[in-house]
Amino acid sequence: MLGKYLESVRKKVPLVHNITNYVTVNDVANILLACGGSPIMSDEPEDVKDITSICGGLNINIGTLNKSSIEGMYRAGRRANEVGHVVLLDPVGAGASALRTNTAVGLMKEIKFDVIRGNISEIKTLANGSGTTKGVDADVADAVTDETLDNAVAFVKGLARETGSIIAITGAIDLVTDGSKCFVIRNGRPEMGRITGTGCQLSGMMTAFLVANPEDKLTAAAAAVCTMGLAGEIGWTRMQEGDGNSTYRNRIIDAVFNMDGKTLDQGAKYEIR
Amino acid sequence: MLGKYLESVRKKVPLVHNITNYVTVNDVANILLACGGSPIMSDEPEDVKDITSICGGLNINIGTLNKSSIEGMYRAGRRANEVGHVVLLDPVGAGASALRTNTAVGLMKEIKFDVIRGNISEIKTLANGSGTTKGVDADVADAVTDETLDNAVAFVKGLARETGSIIAITGAIDLVTDGSKCFVIRNGRPEMGRITGTGCQLSGMMTAFLVANPEDKLTAAAAAVCTMGLAGEIGWTRMQEGDGNSTYRNRIIDAVFNMDGKTLDQGAKYEIR
Amino acid sequence: MLGKYLESVRKKVPLVHNITNYVTVNDVANILLACGGSPIMSDEPEDVKDITSICGGLNINIGTLNKSSIEGMYRAGRRANEVGHVVLLDPVGAGASALRTNTAVGLMKEIKFDVIRGNISEIKTLANGSGTTKGVDADVADAVTDETLDNAVAFVKGLARETGSIIAITGAIDLVTDGSKCFVIRNGRPEMGRITGTGCQLSGMMTAFLVANPEDKLTAAAAAVCTMGLAGEIGWTRMQEGDGNSTYRNRIIDAVFNMDGKTLDQGAKYEIR
Repeated sequence: MLGKYLESVRKKVPLVHNITNYVTVNDVANILLACGGSPIMSDEPEDVKDITSICGGLNINIGTLNKSSIEGMYRAGRRANEVGHVVLLDPVGAGASALRTNTAVGLMKEIKFDVIRGNISEIKTLANGSGTTKGVDADVADAVTDETLDNAVAFVKGLARETGSIIAITGAIDLVTDGSKCFVIRNGRPEMGRITGTGCQLSGMMTAFLVANPEDKLTAAAAAVCTMGLAGEIGWTRMQEGDGNSTYRNRIIDAVFNMDGKTLDQGAKYEIR
Repeated sequence: MLGKYLESVRKKVPLVHNITNYVTVNDVANILLACGGSPIMSDEPEDVKDITSICGGLNINIGTLNKSSIEGMYRAGRRANEVGHVVLLDPVGAGASALRTNTAVGLMKEIKFDVIRGNISEIKTLANGSGTTKGVDADVADAVTDETLDNAVAFVKGLARETGSIIAITGAIDLVTDGSKCFVIRNGRPEMGRITGTGCQLSGMMTAFLVANPEDKLTAAAAAVCTMGLAGEIGWTRMQEGDGNSTYRNRIIDAVFNMDGKTLDQGAKYEIR
Repeated sequence: MLGKYLESVRKKVPLVHNITNYVTVNDVANILLACGGSPIMSDEPEDVKDITSICGGLNINIGTLNKSSIEGMYRAGRRANEVGHVVLLDPVGAGASALRTNTAVGLMKEIKFDVIRGNISEIKTLANGSGTTKGVDADVADAVTDETLDNAVAFVKGLARETGSIIAITGAIDLVTDGSKCFVIRNGRPEMGRITGTGCQLSGMMTAFLVANPEDKLTAAAAAVCTMGLAGEIGWTRMQEGDGNSTYRNRIIDAVFNMDGKTLDQGAKYEIR
């Protein structure tokens, strides 16, 4: 059922504008190409309006932000909203510094995001900082586990309703919700955390999935999460003795490159709550 | 016949200053090392004059340009011209934004480039924008194919004469000309387009080839194109089931690393028009 | 004996703030994860104080420096000194441009570095430029070889005493000293020089080793050098016909990922002078 969302990316070759950190940018570009999309990177304020206009979606990732790129994020985001493009926010490091938190919260106030994707700590920071909630439920532990799942689902649904954005929290268990339906996803492997940038890669890829599937953005976002996690599982089966995180990075992108809709349908592990 | 141009790079270890985008910069550095060159990266305006002075060539790539790096491009380019170094322009995204087009055209007015290397769309944008032609021949289709080859060769030869630069257009068929002779090159594989940065890598490597072969820059540029395309062919033969674009990226750079002059001579596929 | 320093990194998972160049930053992040550390990258002046405060160590690498990131280096360095964090300087390209030399020397005057790690040419530039020595001994040749070893050890010990920093010079023979003891290390392979960024990777990893082993920073620094060199040796044994520098890069990081304390103990090749 999710497979057709991947097939749609391959068919439509969505062009995605990425304002993203320089740590993982090459992997973001290659995974976008792997899934069938087409990446463009630009963060200069005087360049972003033109670039985002010719794309179908915008992926804003605040890792290694700087004053100039922050201005670029605002300009690109406003333009993408004007022309009705998909916009995603990846609030890398929100909560780790005032600048990152304030940038993420500021962007959320001015830009309408289709999706906000981060880890639980980043998302909780936004929930507090945005002023749209009265504070994160103290019962929501930092990790989403089977024990904390009910509370986590309630929290993330609430945040989605308050922000009007799809919220995607990735971790051992991934949650993707629009406020009413919540995909609870169990693909992936813990070793993915030993590679830099699997989250950034997912954000880039997820943007492409939404651009190619505008009629159901929630399922498109969930399909991207399953694709990434399943690629982590498939990539792991190809690891040989002596291989480590650098090779695993290649194997995951390779697995996305070779994945078809049928494989995704068979390998996706999720329930809807 | 082209093999000796590669051997010359390995022998002379040309130092190449790269002002290049942060998406593919690591691969540019590694392919320069793979072919026998030595890379240095610097874009800060106050740093580039010193850096370019100690190098043999300068590779200017306008992807992910910003105001500061644009100033760096001008300063480095002027200095490289002053001291007679090889200078190459890779107009990434010219035509996609006004800033990119204007930067490329502005650089062409002020800096003398030995080579301008891009895809057909970027080069056509420059031909229009530079004011040195009356407009691109409307019969030149966007893709260079056997059907459009005659027109494309005429177009690129004309642009080379008007700019005084070697023009290299890469795609399914590659064209490299100084305005009188045109190399028509048929190395490479379509899957190279599924990797980010094969064009950027070629521009870095081509700069090294010109620095090491100053007595025949046109053939040096063509040799670099054949090296890249042939590496794409050799790398593809080493792909195994389950491998994708991330592994292919490694295989191509590896193939350059292991290529010798004889292999290039045997594998280069070109004619001269 | 060095193995426990690696095991300590894996146990403590030190968080390392990196202000580093955009050429090799992804590999720095992945090798930090491979050895058991955790990387954060940030160079924006308004971001670095917060980021460095939550880390255990700071790795300052001046490659692809710009005016903004230089300010970030000073702010982060001062803050790291205030809170007693480990700080390392990698003076990439010192001697290649006035800006790089002046930045490295200026940072050394204002920031107390636990370690300064570079190649012999960079370190000699700092020794001259800092004014803390009367000039590099003219008998110290550029390469550290068995013939020049006595002079090189004397030079590096002197610089360590004068700066109050551990000095690590890496090359065919590596020297790591605090001014009294000098580790002379013979791990590694010459082919590591055909990959971009093995030095940058070592600097990131070394910072993690010091954070995790504050009771003996000199040995921790030497352990990091041996880990990198041994990973180069192990990685090389896994190379197959047709592999080149791009695959070798992956193999080295993979070897760090899989290395345990026992392997390091058995493979480390050093003497103390």
